Amino acid sequence: MRAPSRRMTPERRREHLIRVAIEIYGQVPPEQVTVDDVTRAADVSRALFYRYFPGLEQLHVAALGSIVAEMIERISMPAGGSVTDQLRNAVEEFLGVVERHAAAYVALLRSGSVISTDRTDAIVDGVRDHIVALLRERAGITDPSPLTLMTLRGWVALVEGASLTWLQERAVPRDELVTWLCDQLAAMLTVTSLRDGSSYPLARP
Amino acid sequence: MRAPSRRMTPERRREHLIRVAIEIYGQVPPEQVTVDDVTRAADVSRALFYRYFPGLEQLHVAALGSIVAEMIERISMPAGGSVTDQLRNAVEEFLGVVERHAAAYVALLRSGSVISTDRTDAIVDGVRDHIVALLRERAGITDPSPLTLMTLRGWVALVEGASLTWLQERAVPRDELVTWLCDQLAAMLTVTSLRDGSSYPLARP
Repeated sequence: MRAPSRRMTPERRREHLIRVAIEIYGQVPPEQVTVDDVTRAADVSRALFYRYFPGLEQLHVAALGSIVAEMIERISMPAGGSVTDQLRNAVEEFLGVVERHAAAYVALLRSGSVISTDRTDAIVDGVRDHIVALLRERAGITDPSPLTLMTLRGWVALVEGASLTWLQERAVPRDELVTWLCDQLAAMLTVTSLRDGSSYPLARP
Repeated sequence: MRAPSRRMTPERRREHLIRVAIEIYGQVPPEQVTVDDVTRAADVSRALFYRYFPGLEQLHVAALGSIVAEMIERISMPAGGSVTDQLRNAVEEFLGVVERHAAAYVALLRSGSVISTDRTDAIVDGVRDHIVALLRERAGITDPSPLTLMTLRGWVALVEGASLTWLQERAVPRDELVTWLCDQLAAMLTVTSLRDGSSYPLARP
């Protein structure tokens, strides 16, 4: 990926390095990527690289942050229709981002990743919290019971695990996965509403 | 915790140090525990400590391994009754171990823990795989569909997340949590069986 111009603003230069890195992760596991790989693909000097990032770990963290920002922007877009339609739409957007950055997503999120750091863990936790907040907002859950919160967090973990497995195995069509995930949330909320009397628009009557 | 005797076999000595460490984690976050804390509580010299563990990280890993071994032993015990009874029993045993080692479990498993290492990640993944294998065995799921595997793994993530939240907040009684978790598995498997035609004894008709 050639730089569009030798003269970029610092912000655009930084973004360019991040985009180049995410592209490289598609071919090479992040932990095997070298500074030379990045500078060669970005057509910049090592000195320039180190002006933007102290090292590769900071580049990995920035790349994850960039993917996450795109994800949050996409799933937060206001969508019309019923709560169920909105949920389906958000899950589709989520899987779209996941699929677009498949290799980077798998490499950055998989358990035991050598590039996992306190900082990436915090970013990943931030996405989880954001999705739970979004679900609550869209479904109008203002005062969730303890089991409701566990349900929403558990479903987010299901989405995360299922999307990782799906990317690696592609054993079900994407549309089927979306429907299955939405049905799971409805079923899980139904169990919770039967257990503690909570009520939500997504639970089955 | 005093050593029962100054003359222990190396194996018992090692186990004693691990038990002492798990006890200390109940009062002090593992990342703040020092070698001196352990040797003082175990009534041994620093030299002896280092004969068994190169450092604190190895002690943390051994402690997690010890808790995990107890967990696997407990949940794997053959139980009579229906598949549903067996599931309930295994979930109760799981939460029993979790509760018995609450502070150590939270500290060792929480995301972003400074003592998380490739080795602890591998141990935690091992438990997850073991639980999925156990569920398959007990429920007679010999040839799981892709969605079934995602369901079982997703439910394990739910159990893990819910038990961490439960330990930290204690917002629901343990019995209620057990029932809720068992109901969630039945509901999740039901969704999957409706979607891809899989059938299992635990899914609702």
